[in-house]
Order: sequence, then C-alpha cells, then structure tokens
Amino acid sequence: MEIPTEREKMTAGEAYNQFDPELIARRVKIRKALQTINQTPDNDTRNHAIRALLADSGPDFFVESEFKFDYGFNIHIGDHFYGNYDITLLDTCPITIGDHCYFGPGIGLYTPVHPITAAERNADVELGAPITIGNSCWFGGHVTVCPGVTLGNRVVVGAGSVVTKSFGDDVVIAGNPARVIRKIQQ
Amino acid sequence: MEIPTEREKMTAGEAYNQFDPELIARRVKIRKALQTINQTPDNDTRNHAIRALLADSGPDFFVESEFKFDYGFNIHIGDHFYGNYDITLLDTCPITIGDHCYFGPGIGLYTPVHPITAAERNADVELGAPITIGNSCWFGGHVTVCPGVTLGNRVVVGAGSVVTKSFGDDVVIAGNPARVIRKIQQ
Amino acid sequence: MEIPTEREKMTAGEAYNQFDPELIARRVKIRKALQTINQTPDNDTRNHAIRALLADSGPDFFVESEFKFDYGFNIHIGDHFYGNYDITLLDTCPITIGDHCYFGPGIGLYTPVHPITAAERNADVELGAPITIGNSCWFGGHVTVCPGVTLGNRVVVGAGSVVTKSFGDDVVIAGNPARVIRKIQQ
Repeated sequence: MEIPTEREKMTAGEAYNQFDPELIARRVKIRKALQTINQTPDNDTRNHAIRALLADSGPDFFVESEFKFDYGFNIHIGDHFYGNYDITLLDTCPITIGDHCYFGPGIGLYTPVHPITAAERNADVELGAPITIGNSCWFGGHVTVCPGVTLGNRVVVGAGSVVTKSFGDDVVIAGNPARVIRKIQQ
Repeated sequence: MEIPTEREKMTAGEAYNQFDPELIARRVKIRKALQTINQTPDNDTRNHAIRALLADSGPDFFVESEFKFDYGFNIHIGDHFYGNYDITLLDTCPITIGDHCYFGPGIGLYTPVHPITAAERNADVELGAPITIGNSCWFGGHVTVCPGVTLGNRVVVGAGSVVTKSFGDDVVIAGNPARVIRKIQQ
Repeated sequence: MEIPTEREKMTAGEAYNQFDPELIARRVKIRKALQTINQTPDNDTRNHAIRALLADSGPDFFVESEFKFDYGFNIHIGDHFYGNYDITLLDTCPITIGDHCYFGPGIGLYTPVHPITAAERNADVELGAPITIGNSCWFGGHVTVCPGVTLGNRVVVGAGSVVTKSFGDDVVIAGNPARVIRKIQQ
C-alpha cells in the first residue's frame, strides 16, 4: 500500500500539510509565472502560457488578465472557454469546467475549506472539496462559487451570485445564496 | 440606407459579430494600453491617458489602478468623477455616468448580455443593454450593476449590492438584489 | 490645546480635508510602493516590504498579490496572518485584525464614509468609522466589510458575504446582509 503524497491528499480533499516542499515549490512557480503571464498583452502568447500550467484545456481557450490560480494541476477546462477580467480559481481540489462556458469578470471558484473550530484551523489544517461545472454554462460577473458545488449543463448564474450548493441542468440561478429563479426551455 | 457596422450594432444592443476585425483591433489596443497605463504610478499621467480612451469625461477625473474596460468608446463620464481601486466597465453598450459620482473599489458595470438558451449562446451571439447613472451618486465598494440598469440622481448604493433593475432619484439601495432601504431627504 | 492634523481628524472618523498635502503625499507614496511591491514574486521580499508600510503586524505575515490599501498607518494586523489574492483595505480609519486570521481572495474592508446627502458629499466631505476583527477569524473569498463593523473572536464569514453590522464571538455569518447562520461550539 502506497503512502499518498501531500499533493494527493490535498487533491482528495483530505487534511494535508500545506508547507510540504513540493506544494510550496509549485505555488512559488505559479505565482512567478502568473505575474509575467498576466502582464503579457499578446493574447495568443498569454493564453498559450496559461494553458501550459493547467491540467487540461481545449484549444479554443481565451482568458483576459489577471487570471489567477493556486496550482493549475487541478484545473480541467473544456473547449471553447472564454473568461473575462480577473478570474480566480483556487484549485487545491479539482475544478472541472465543461465545454462552451462563458465567465464574466471578477469570478471566484474556491475549493479550499478550513475547519470551523478555531483550534483546528489555527493548527493550519486545510481541507477542500471539488467544484464541477457542466457544459454550456454562462456566469455573470462577480460570481462566487463555494467548495463542493456541482452545476449541471446549460446553467446561467446571475451576476453577483454566491453559489453555496449544487444545482442541476437548465436553470437560471441568482442571489446570495443563489436560488433557482427560472427554468430554461432550451 | 446604410448598413450598420458591427460596432454600431453592438452599441445599439443588437446581435453583432464579436470577431469583427475593427472590434478585435480595438480590444487588442485597449488591453495593451491598459496594461501600461495601470502600471503608471503618476496620477496625472495615468488619468490623462485613460481619459484619452473614453468617449467623454470631465477634466476633474481621478481613478485608481486597475481601471479596466472593453472599448472605451462607449464610456461617457461626467465631471468630478472619483473611482477607487479595480473598477471594471464592460462597455459593449453605452455606460453613462453623470457629474459628481464617487465609486468605491471593486465595482463592476456590465452591459453585455448573452442569450439564455445554450444553442444561441454557443453560436457566439452577443447582445447588450446600456447602463445609465445620474448625477451625484455614491457607490460603495464591490457593487455589481447589471445590463439595462438606470439609476437616478443622488442615489447611494450600499457596498456589495447587486443592482438588477432601475431606481429613481434620492434613494439608498442595498442588497442582492438591491432594494430601496431608505429615501434621502436632500 | 493642540489643533488636530487632517490625518488625526481622518483617523478619528471626523470630517477632514482629503487634499491635505500630508495625506496626498502619503497616498502617492503608497500607490507607487504598492505597484512595485505587488509585482515582486519573491514572497519574503514582498511581505517584508508590505509590513514596513503598516502600523503593526506580526512576524508570521503572508499575503498574496495584489494587496492594496490607502495609507497603511491605520492598519494593525496581529500575528499569523494569511491573506489570499487581491485584498483591499481602505484605512482612512483604523483597521484592526487580531491574531491567527485567514482571509480568502477578493476581500474588501472599507472604513471611509461619505455623507448621505449630495450637497455635503459633493463638497468633498469625507468621514469614516473603524473596523475591528477579533482573533482566529476566517473570511471566505469576496467578502465585503462596511465601516464601523466589529467582529468578535473565532468568527467565520461565508464567501461572498456583505457584513453591514457587528457580531460577537463564535458564530458563522453569511449572506447579504450577513446574518448568523450557526453558532460554533469550540
């Protein structure tokens, strides 16, 4: 039986040591890379460099600056992705986004979870839960997605929404916390 | 009868081709310009350079970095404007802001609209609706304004609000969605 | 009896002249410093430079880029602070954060207050109210904290919350406006 690495434990959402040398080295690498990449005005060069740091992405991939994340190796994005200004993906656990998704500006998808009790949290225990977004979703600007959320296909998320739980296919959700405000007849 | 350009269709809120060469060239120009401008610490130089990219603005104009937008040619800002850190104006349609407005940090005004059905959206159809803000408004930080919203004069928008519909003069609005929480006796 | 400086009036939350030369000089210094600092990928160098601009901070201090504030001289942060990407602290009045606090990305703490009536506001009158956060608090991403808020110890603030009033110890708060959604048994 193999002992899991800290990276494997983190990706699985289990308690892990965030001061693990492999994880620190990756974060340092990503921060440094993103500062250069996000200052690159040429769209092809910038987007090619970002894709090289992600686990998966499709060839039709376009994000504006600043696109930020923690590790990249837990980010899986389908084809035909467009992301507007200032998107932040905290990918301690997997973030999976389907094909044909459009993201507005200022969106945050956050997988990390800290313990709710202070003593555990102060001991630097960190957990997490994956985020999964289906195909053909459109997120308005300033949307927040909490750890563990799954959205179905063809979901529209209203600008400024805070998505705290999962929803199925073909709905418009909005608000804080986000609720279904309309079903979509495709 | 003249055939409208893609820029004219976009500005009118009608379906347009976002891959039109004129529009692509403008976006490339703006992204490149903003990266340089937003790294310019001298206030006069930076604000002068931003004003040169907007349709209209008054001489008393001050924004902090990073000030971001899509095209600039659809942004009309009155005199005596102050905008704090990290304001984003998506101006596919006109964004009109009156005189004497104060904007907190992290505010987004978004005019683009995508179709609600996935098939149309995935065909890269993009629509839009203008945003109009009256005179003497104050927006707290982290405010989101949706396409098509008109606000009257002397409106105060609470921090973190998501403004999904229009409101008249002399009100404080707040929440997600924003509602009138108080009338203002001037 | 000594006449208070504009800085002293501002810090006390009283009407002050924001065009005071001392205050302008400080803001210019901070904007310039932050643009360099936030482009510094080396964590130790960057965090050391930020700490030098704050009133108080503990030796165990780590923030990601971009960390932004107005003056720095009104920011008091305890030991063992971690702040994720893109935190903005508007510190015209004191912002005090206890020990062992964890802040997610995209958080804004805003102490400035403008008058609610347009005539006073347009005369550039600016007021403010302090923000005080206890020990061992965890803020999810995209949280907004309004002027005058005090939070107790061991408070968890849900992602996307807008905190408009004060709360005591050992609660989870969330929503817009934030409300207690759970008490925490430590």
